[in-house]
Formats: sequence, structure tokens, C-alpha cells
Amino acid sequence: MRSWWYADLTWPELRDAAASGTGVVLPIGSTEQHGPHLAVSCDVDLSSALAHAIAEENDLLVAPPITYGYRSRPLSGGGQTFPGTISVSARTLMAVVEDVLVELMRSGFKRLVLLNWHYENANFIYEAAVLARERSPHADGVRIMVVEAAFAGLSEHAMEVMFEGDFQGWDVEHAAILETSLMLHLCPEKVLFDRAVDDASARHPSYDLVPAPDDFIPASGVLWKATLATAEKGAVVWPEIVAGLAVSVAREL
Amino acid sequence: MRSWWYADLTWPELRDAAASGTGVVLPIGSTEQHGPHLAVSCDVDLSSALAHAIAEENDLLVAPPITYGYRSRPLSGGGQTFPGTISVSARTLMAVVEDVLVELMRSGFKRLVLLNWHYENANFIYEAAVLARERSPHADGVRIMVVEAAFAGLSEHAMEVMFEGDFQGWDVEHAAILETSLMLHLCPEKVLFDRAVDDASARHPSYDLVPAPDDFIPASGVLWKATLATAEKGAVVWPEIVAGLAVSVAREL
Amino acid sequence: MRSWWYADLTWPELRDAAASGTGVVLPIGSTEQHGPHLAVSCDVDLSSALAHAIAEENDLLVAPPITYGYRSRPLSGGGQTFPGTISVSARTLMAVVEDVLVELMRSGFKRLVLLNWHYENANFIYEAAVLARERSPHADGVRIMVVEAAFAGLSEHAMEVMFEGDFQGWDVEHAAILETSLMLHLCPEKVLFDRAVDDASARHPSYDLVPAPDDFIPASGVLWKATLATAEKGAVVWPEIVAGLAVSVAREL
Amino acid sequence: MRSWWYADLTWPELRDAAASGTGVVLPIGSTEQHGPHLAVSCDVDLSSALAHAIAEENDLLVAPPITYGYRSRPLSGGGQTFPGTISVSARTLMAVVEDVLVELMRSGFKRLVLLNWHYENANFIYEAAVLARERSPHADGVRIMVVEAAFAGLSEHAMEVMFEGDFQGWDVEHAAILETSLMLHLCPEKVLFDRAVDDASARHPSYDLVPAPDDFIPASGVLWKATLATAEKGAVVWPEIVAGLAVSVAREL
Amino acid sequence: MRSWWYADLTWPELRDAAASGTGVVLPIGSTEQHGPHLAVSCDVDLSSALAHAIAEENDLLVAPPITYGYRSRPLSGGGQTFPGTISVSARTLMAVVEDVLVELMRSGFKRLVLLNWHYENANFIYEAAVLARERSPHADGVRIMVVEAAFAGLSEHAMEVMFEGDFQGWDVEHAAILETSLMLHLCPEKVLFDRAVDDASARHPSYDLVPAPDDFIPASGVLWKATLATAEKGAVVWPEIVAGLAVSVAREL
Amino acid sequence: MRSWWYADLTWPELRDAAASGTGVVLPIGSTEQHGPHLAVSCDVDLSSALAHAIAEENDLLVAPPITYGYRSRPLSGGGQTFPGTISVSARTLMAVVEDVLVELMRSGFKRLVLLNWHYENANFIYEAAVLARERSPHADGVRIMVVEAAFAGLSEHAMEVMFEGDFQGWDVEHAAILETSLMLHLCPEKVLFDRAVDDASARHPSYDLVPAPDDFIPASGVLWKATLATAEKGAVVWPEIVAGLAVSVAREL
Repeated sequence: MRSWWYADLTWPELRDAAASGTGVVLPIGSTEQHGPHLAVSCDVDLSSALAHAIAEENDLLVAPPITYGYRSRPLSGGGQTFPGTISVSARTLMAVVEDVLVELMRSGFKRLVLLNWHYENANFIYEAAVLARERSPHADGVRIMVVEAAFAGLSEHAMEVMFEGDFQGWDVEHAAILETSLMLHLCPEKVLFDRAVDDASARHPSYDLVPAPDDFIPASGVLWKATLATAEKGAVVWPEIVAGLAVSVAREL
Repeated sequence: MRSWWYADLTWPELRDAAASGTGVVLPIGSTEQHGPHLAVSCDVDLSSALAHAIAEENDLLVAPPITYGYRSRPLSGGGQTFPGTISVSARTLMAVVEDVLVELMRSGFKRLVLLNWHYENANFIYEAAVLARERSPHADGVRIMVVEAAFAGLSEHAMEVMFEGDFQGWDVEHAAILETSLMLHLCPEKVLFDRAVDDASARHPSYDLVPAPDDFIPASGVLWKATLATAEKGAVVWPEIVAGLAVSVAREL
Repeated sequence: MRSWWYADLTWPELRDAAASGTGVVLPIGSTEQHGPHLAVSCDVDLSSALAHAIAEENDLLVAPPITYGYRSRPLSGGGQTFPGTISVSARTLMAVVEDVLVELMRSGFKRLVLLNWHYENANFIYEAAVLARERSPHADGVRIMVVEAAFAGLSEHAMEVMFEGDFQGWDVEHAAILETSLMLHLCPEKVLFDRAVDDASARHPSYDLVPAPDDFIPASGVLWKATLATAEKGAVVWPEIVAGLAVSVAREL
Repeated sequence: MRSWWYADLTWPELRDAAASGTGVVLPIGSTEQHGPHLAVSCDVDLSSALAHAIAEENDLLVAPPITYGYRSRPLSGGGQTFPGTISVSARTLMAVVEDVLVELMRSGFKRLVLLNWHYENANFIYEAAVLARERSPHADGVRIMVVEAAFAGLSEHAMEVMFEGDFQGWDVEHAAILETSLMLHLCPEKVLFDRAVDDASARHPSYDLVPAPDDFIPASGVLWKATLATAEKGAVVWPEIVAGLAVSVAREL
Repeated sequence: MRSWWYADLTWPELRDAAASGTGVVLPIGSTEQHGPHLAVSCDVDLSSALAHAIAEENDLLVAPPITYGYRSRPLSGGGQTFPGTISVSARTLMAVVEDVLVELMRSGFKRLVLLNWHYENANFIYEAAVLARERSPHADGVRIMVVEAAFAGLSEHAMEVMFEGDFQGWDVEHAAILETSLMLHLCPEKVLFDRAVDDASARHPSYDLVPAPDDFIPASGVLWKATLATAEKGAVVWPEIVAGLAVSVAREL
Repeated sequence: MRSWWYADLTWPELRDAAASGTGVVLPIGSTEQHGPHLAVSCDVDLSSALAHAIAEENDLLVAPPITYGYRSRPLSGGGQTFPGTISVSARTLMAVVEDVLVELMRSGFKRLVLLNWHYENANFIYEAAVLARERSPHADGVRIMVVEAAFAGLSEHAMEVMFEGDFQGWDVEHAAILETSLMLHLCPEKVLFDRAVDDASARHPSYDLVPAPDDFIPASGVLWKATLATAEKGAVVWPEIVAGLAVSVAREL
């Protein structure tokens, strides 16, 4: 393929790709606060980078990413009180993903991946996949892989390298060790590491409250210790995430 | 209160309850296959029983439950291929919960709990809570607690009693040890225990596929070893779940 | 059938029921003020009881009822100013009923009944039936019976027993003679008969007003003379309602 | 007023009308089969004529009518199998009426009437009125009168003249004695009376079926004896309908 | 055809028309301020008149027009600040037109024209046509012609007669020379020509602003020189518009 | 500003930007066939580049662009039959833009620009702006500029340079002289100029047809003579487009 970015190609190239069995991965992220040291694009940067990293091996074009995700929830993203975050409602997110899938099916693509890196998008993108298959007249033979948590299933080694025995759960890994390390590894120029802080909400229960009380939300927007991040950690873990996803895609599509 | 079931009361009683600061808990469940030994009402039976168990202590009326939940997903509920399961779309589930919350606020209730026992409803009911507060002219002073996984946070002891060291994850605890044990404890007459089986999907990845391949779905609809359930396990764990929730509600509302 | 309540059964039982031609009746009601003497569940209690009463004879399972109905209208239910009433919008009611019907068709049920006991749900549930058949890929051979007013067509004798020559119209029979008598007959423990009152709106025109003027709405929420109700009246009329419905279902499905 | 048809006026005239307290009546009808002798515009012709007849006396402008109504139901309109009928869905009808009401409130009109002549529109237009008031920032002081059945409440004399002692119910008065008589009185040139027939469905139960069986639907689309209509009957009844409505509007708005 | 107005016909006549290949044109307009001299019905008067003018030649019935159009935009209609204008939202307009098209297809009509005379409806009615064809099970062989600007393509001669060398663009031809001239020609009794004014917005950029600044909106609602209109101009241009459309329809349908 | 791309910034930077009066421009484009020589990203490349070009001068951050636009129409984009094009429905496009605007207002931004480069998005994005202002509780003092056609208003000189006296209309300037020249000027590496062709639909009427006939659609997807494009033409015209927009923004916001 001349480029694995869908956006770079012309329609005859896309027509030929579909005809030859190439698939499409749609990166899904957010435009969401990620503390004082990471850009609001962090989630979509990571899902896009991950999509591109597997593109050639899995014969998948990377569609223009979904940059606006579902509302930030306080306990996994700091919530909707931070300026700068731009979220969409559940209905809107589902509508966009559904429409894009329907169009990809119309174009003849059969191997489709929704690749999400924003916890709050879970379930909504699954619903979009279900609705798209129901609606499309071109759904025969189409398989949609829905990856809601791309980092699930890291090896014990990777977990140890990344968290050094003090893993606090994926929900607080927002703008914290994992994401900061990956960004330091992938595009250090987008990280203002000198502004990174260690922070946490005063409490972090297993339920949610609407509206969220102040003590659910760390002032910085960092949900755990961002200063523990290093490019080296990212360099160890990223290839494992990429390889894990590539194997999964190869198995399923 | 003459009864803690909202449905049993008259409007003057409900008016007085709202005026005196009583809250409302809305049990949310599903009508979903739960193997050959549990009724399709299992989820809503459990969320309703749990709601009622905390009602007096937390001064909460139990609203008529949401009996139809979001689509069953193969890896946590067996999926939509089983006859008997009655699910609703994401938009429908959100609309119902939003409308009910708006009406409770109109009636003057300020302390509201969404108490869910069906993994697939997560995020959708949170969105409903957000939308209801945005829309209601009576939202001032209202706090909505969103309990998406009521059993999160069991003690090590309870986990050991229930799973005997072989816990496989909450997602496969569908129609399996926990739910069967609780039903044996709470209403054994609804359990056809002689039909209980041990089953599992051939594989259980961290992503989903639409449509789901056959090897994601155990033929029985049981996602793990239902035969390991006992009423005694239920009798140990249930009070802990109830107490945990009651403490949380008392803290927040 | 081991139970005629759909909720009590397991999926293999429901699969077999559908395969053998058993149908499903969906009781539809409301959570609506019914005066100081009847529970807000009155409508759904009656539609559920009626559904169960015909279940065996008509080979119909009773699905989990729709407990939240369309907005209470002042002239037939007292309206939306009473605390305690929980109604849903037209769009929401239609969405729920449509989704449930689509799922019942997917499960293989062909004989379906929408059994309503809440005047305000009329037309909305008919629309849901139309939409469900349009949308379902399993609609062939399905027939949906839409019973919007289950008590229509009482004999002269029953009318005379119930109303003693002073019938004021079905619209004001809200929390009044008929409903109170039926509840006294069916579950007297849910009736606070000593709180029953005779009431009426100051006027009751053939049109409606939004917002409703105060003189459309009796303060008690009772639209006519509840004290005239007796269990004996209920005992005469209920079997006739049941039998009439059973005959109709047998004729049509 | 230069004209009582809203459509005939210029915006300064409408501005002044609103400022001076003039109200607006919105005729609502259908485009629906009315047998071989009446035009499909019958319902909207009647609601428009009725609106115009009370306009001056009640100081109400007649807005451009809603010509497309909710789906024809077999037992009250013959149903959706007739070519020529153009109906809209419930959601669409509600959306149009809601939007029109919101705009009338924005323009400053406070006295609003929804004047319906198509049984199947009932409830939907009420919901539209509720939604419009909730949504409009100009709802203060607005009163919306919802007339779902304009002919309700005829005198015994009028009933006797019209039906000669053989009244079969308003639902079968579709394209039958009342509507044909009124059209003969109001615009005889739109009646092909020589094509009028007497017809009826083979049966006419109190419930509905989806899809409707053939014996619910008379082949002609006439639900009762159209040949019994006369212009004279119309001449007696029409003034009574007009006067009754005028009195009601005067009382309420 | 006994009448070319769809509304005048009976269902057997419409059935026969569809069977014989007659098509349907749906006039679409607005209820929108058109200055102090033209009625708010101007747009729908013109689209209806145009539809009727081609009806016989093109064998097209004229369906009841869409009288409520999309929101008036300041730079092409004066905007939504004028009292008297009644607009609907985009979703509502699309829903109505979609439903009407679906019903026309159900009735068997294959040759369909959306004939618009209100600039702001563009794109929305195209979407409705796309959605209707996707949804209808009777779309085979149907062709929908979407005429968004009926006056496009006037001859140089007509342009010269109408604008005398000073054409300012179609967007400001709102309540100005063209529309006033056509109304003077077609129904002079609806024109209050003595109130006609020459007006213009203080500026008229190629972009829009929400909310619109005052200097986008001429106080009169007339966007250009209405006093230059004459019945004679209308008499020259109207036949050319009619003939142009008739030729186009004949070519396409 | 450290970067004028919104996505590059952290939430404290965005908070400060909003507080200091910086605005936001949202580029809107499409993922649409642009012939055999231009990438499907052409529209969004151009709207993004244009947004960035004015960002500093107008103190506007460039939000993550809307990459999926409304359906391609045959006469202005070749239509929806080309593989590779990914469009969304009208409802989806409006929902996304509305939600993004509401969030920008919540974040405190007051100066907002919708900058479109895809003809088919017109009207839909205007509606989104209206809906967003109606819905947002933070709309006071917000002004939204809606630029539907960024290239409107080129000087005669620029038009002459670009089209050499043979301008065929903006609608056919799809993948043709203007867009190809601009892309050659801005990012020649994305242009496969050796594949550029001259093409045109066999006919190009002023109305549309659904479905589109083949002779509305040039086989290449190029609507006019792409080979006439040069980087030099782009170099002349681009600065004029940028300057024109910058002046307009400075005037309005």
C-alpha cells in the first residue's frame, strides 16, 4: 500500500484495497484533559499510533480517527468540569461510529476493527457495531472486531516494568504512568514532562455520583503518579501492546 | 414506611416521603438467559432484592425495576442468539432511565440510586443520569448515585468462600457460581439446580466480535461452573454485598 | 407450563414454548397516582392480573410488564402534578414496547398481545406494534393483538352491578368504582379503603388544556366515587373481563 | 382582521395581532381515504372549515393546517392498505406540531388551539403540546387548548337528526353519515355522492390487530352507511358543532 | 384527471392514477415573513402554483404542500426574529418529507418531484429523498426529482426584463423584485403593493453569524427593491419558469 | 500560543486561552472521492490548512477537524457510488457539530468559527450552530461564525488566474482546477498529478435526482479539468483566500 493512512489514498486505491481484502481499523479516542503535561489529544494519538503500528502486518488501512469521545467520567478521566475537554453525548458517538461502519461496508471492506483508547467509549461503540450490521445491506461476510481496552492482557513482565509492583487499576491510569510513558516513547515532543505531577482523587469508590463530589476529582486531572513515567517503560510496553493486538487481529479477521 | 416498595404506596404517602427526605433506588436488571437452571429474571431479581435489603436502613423506596436491559453481550451474558432473552437498544434503555429520573425529581425526591445488576447496562445508565440532571428543572440539590457493579469490593474472605481460589473474572460470573449461590440463598424455589451445568466458552478474549463466533458462546448459556454454587456461599456473601452497599449509600446520600 | 410468568422460566423452556406455538402477552400499565386509597401500581397490577388470568387458557406467557406508562392526563388520570406519578414520554414508551416486540419475534414467538390498562397509552402502543413489525426480520406469520381498553364491552348486567345506573364514562373511572372494586376483589391488602373518597373535577370537558386549569383536577386524585366500590362488584365484573378477553384472544391468535 | 387565514397576512399584521391578544387555531387533519365519494382531504377540510367558522368570534387566526396525520387505523379509518392515503409516523406528527407551537409562542401568541379532525391523531398532538411548552422560552402565560374530537357533545336533537336513532359509534363514522353530510353542506362540489355506498367491516371489535385481518376493513373504505347522508343533516349539525366549539374556546382562552 | 390537486381526489382515483403511471409533485415552501406587502404564504403559494402549472402537461398530481419550511436565515429570508414566521427544525422537515415520500411509494407512485421554493430547505429535502428510498420497500423503479431552486436557469432575456441589469443575487431576491412580480401576476389580490418598500441589509457577507447582528437584517424584511416589481415582469418570467420546469420533468421522469 | 492546534495543548493552556479571549475554529470537511489524483482527505486538508493559516492572526485555536461530512451529492462531489467515500447522515453531522460547539462554550470559548470546505455540509452546520446556542447554558456572549463556502468572494484577478476565463461554477470545482492547484501549492506530496484527468458529467442540471442517473456522474470522479491545475495558480489564490477569511473573522469576532 502506498500509505496505510486511509486519508492519504485516492478512491481507486481504496476500491482496489477493498477488492483485495484489505480491512480498515478505525481509531477511537477523545479530546480530553490529560493533566498539565499531556495534550488533550493523548487518547486519539495512542489509538491512532497503535492502529498504524499494526496496519501493514494486518493489512488494515487506518481510517480518519474519531477524535471526540464520550463524556469524561470523573473516576476514569477527571470528568466534564475541566475546560478544554470536548466530549460528545452517547447518542452522537454511536451515530458517528455507526455511519462510518455502514459506509465502510458499502465501499466493500469486510474486515473492520474499532480500536478504542478511551475507557468511557466502551459499550457505546459496541452498540454502534451492532446497529451498523443491522442497517447495512452489505453486512454479509463482514466481521467487526471491537477492541474496547487495547492494553488489556499485558504480560506480568510488562506490568512489573511499568508499575513496579504498585498497580492501582486501569481506571486511574489516566494521564498517569502508562499513558505518559507511551507518549514519552512515541512522541516526546508532545509531553511537557516538567509539568507532570503525582496526584489522585481523595477517594475512588466503585460507584459513581452525578454530580461528582469534589473529592472524586484530582485538581490536576492526573489520576495517579505521572512522574513515575519514563520513555524506557514506554519502550518496553508499547511493542507488547502492538504485538498483542496484531496477533489478535490476525486470529480473528 | 408502610412498605419500602414504591409501587405499594399511594401518592400522598409518596408526597410525604419525598418531603421528609426519603430517597429512591431504581433496580436495573435484564430479561436475559441465565443458563438452564436460572430464570431469565435473575439480574432483576438480584438488583431488586439488593435494593429492598438496604431500603429501610438507607431510607430509600424501591422504584418499580427496569426489567429490560441492554443487549446481552456474548462474553458476559451469552449474547443475543439465545431465545428468551429480551433486550432493548442503548437509546431505549437510556430514554427510560432518563425519564424515570426526571419524574422522580419532579416528585421532589433528592436522593436517587441507580442500582444495576447487568454488566451490559454500564455507561448507558450513567449517561441517563447525566441527561436527566441536564433536563430536569428540579435538579438542584439532587444527587444520583450510579452503582454499575454492585458486587465490586467483596472482601478476600468472601471471595475465597465463593470461588475457593479459582476466580475467573466477573464477566464469566454469568449464571455461574455467584449468581446461582445468591439465588439459592434468596429464593431457592426459582433455581432448577439439577439442571445446573459447568460450562465455558471455548475462548474468552479481551475484545469482542460482531457477529460473535460460535466459540465465544457456551451452548448452555452458563459462562462458568454453576454446579459449584451453594446456598451456603450465598448466605455468606449476600450480607456482605448488602452491607457494603448500605455503607456506601449512607456515605454519599 | 411450569409457570405462566415469562420471568420465571429458563431460556430452554422459553425456546420450547416459542417452538410449540405458545404466545406472549405483555401487560402495560403505569406508575400513577390512584387517589389516597390505591397504590400507584394499580394499572399495572390489573393488566398483569388480567394477563395471568388468561395465560393458561390462551397458551400465553406473561412477559415482565411495562410499569411506566405515558404521561397522566388530567381528565383521565389526574395529570402530572401529583407527586409519586412516574410517567415516560411518548417517544420512550413507544421505543420500549417496540424493542420488546422485536425481541419476542426474534425468540420465535408469533402470537403476541399488548394488554393495556392505562387510557393514556392508547395509540402509542399501536404505533409501537406497527414499528416493530416493520423493523423485525422475523415478522412473517406474527400477529400482534393490541388491547387498548381491556374493559370495553362489559355486559349490561355487569355495568348495572358495577355502576348502579350512574355510569359517568370510562375516563373518570380512574381510581373510582371499577378499579377500586377490582383491587378489593383481587388483592384487598393493597387497598386502604378507609381512605377512599368520592371526588370529581369541578368540570370535565371533552377537550384538554395545557397547562391544565385547577378545576380539571380533583384534589384527591380520585375522578369519581371510590366509596361506592365493593369487593362484590369486583367479583362479578372481573370474571367477565377475563372471559371476554380470553374469547377474543382465542378468536384472533 | 383583514383575513382570518394566517397565511394571508403579512408579518407586521401578525405581529400586531399577537400584540393585541389574538390567538391562533391550528387545524389538524389527514390525507386519508374517505371512500369512493369523498376526497382524501375530508378531515383537513372539516377541521379547517371549523377553525375558520369560529375565527372571528373567538379572535383566532387559522394557521396553515396540518394536512398529513397519523397512520390510518383499520377500525377508524380503513387502515394503511388503501392507496392514496398519506400518513406520517407518530414521531413525525409530534415533531411538526411541537415545532409549530414553539414558533407561535416565539411570535407572541398566547391563546393557542389544536383543532383535530382525525381520530388517530389523538394523544400524539397532546404530547406535542406538552413538549412545546416544556421547550419554549416563551411559554409563560400561554394556554394550549387541545381539541381531539371536535364533534363530541352534540345535542340529542342533533344526534337524532343525523343518525335517526341508529348511531353506531364515532369510530365507524368515517366517510359515513356525519362526514358526508357535513361535506354536502359545506362544499357539495367536493362530494361524488353518486359513488357513495353503504358499507361496514365484517366485524369491529374493541381491540386492534397488526396486521389487520381483511374482515376489519370494508372494501370501499366507507365504515358505515354513507348514502344516509344529506346536506340537510349537515345544515342542522354543523352550526351546533361550530357554536359548541366557539363557546368552549371563549370559556377557556 | 378530474383535478390535478391530489387532495381533491378519492382513493380509487388515486389508485388508478398510480397504476396508470401518473406521478406526484410535492410543493415545498415556508410560512415566512415576506415584507410588509406579501403574505407569509408567498413561498408555498409559488411552489404550489408552479406545481399545478406543470401538472397536466407532466401528468403529475399536486400533493398537499409542505407549508412549514426550515428556519429562515437572515441573509436569505430575514431570519427568525420576525414575528409571524413559523419554521420547523431540520430534523422535523426531513421527517415530514421522508414520510410523505415513503407513503407515495407505498401507494404505487413512481415519478416523484420535490418542488421547493424556499432557499433554506435545500439539502434537507435532498436528505429526505435519500432516506425515503433507503427505507421504503417499494423504492424499485422510483425516481425522485429534487428541485431545490425552481427559478435557476432563466434566460438572459427574462433576467433582463426582471432585473433591468441590476441583479443582486438570488439570496436577496426575498420579498423583492422576482417574488413580488410573480405574485402580482398570479394573485394580485394577495399583494399589498402600496406597502412595498425598497430595503436591504446594511451588509451581506458570504458567511453567516449566529446570532445574526442587526445589520444583517433589514427592518422591513424585504431584502431588495420590492417597488421595482410589476405584474408585467411576472407575466414574462412566470411562463419561462413553468416551461423550464416542465421540460426538465419530461426529460427525467 | 505554544501551538495553534487545539489538540496539542493541555487543559490548563486551554483554560487560559479561553479566559484570555482566544477563540476556536472548527475545520469541517469530508472523506470523499476526489478523483484519481487527490486523496479522499482533500476537503478536510484544505479547511484545516485554512484554519491554521488564520489562527495566529485571528487568535483562534484550531479544533480537531470534522473529517466525515454529509453525503456526497452527484453534481457537486460525484455522489455516494464511489468506494472510499465515507459520509455521515444529516442527523449525525448535525449532532457532532452541535455537541462540539456546546462543549467549547462550556469551556469558556466565546469566539467560534465553523469553517467548512465541503459544499454538501451547508445548512446542516448552520442548524448545528442554532441548536447549540439554544441548548447551551453558556451561550451568553457567544458568537458563532458559519463559513459555508470559504472561497466565495475571490477577486477578479484571482478568478482569472485560476480559471483563465473559463469558470464553470463552484459546484463542478470538485477535484478540479481550484482544489488541485491548492493542494499542489500546499502539499504537493499528496497529489498524484500524473493521474489527474479532465472530466465532466455528461450533463449537469440545476436539479438533482435520487437515484442519480449515470450521466450525472463522471467516471473518474473529477467534475472538471484537473489537468489545468498548477502549483502557481494555488500560490496566487491561496493567500487571497486566507487573507479574505482573516479579514472577515477580524471584523466579526
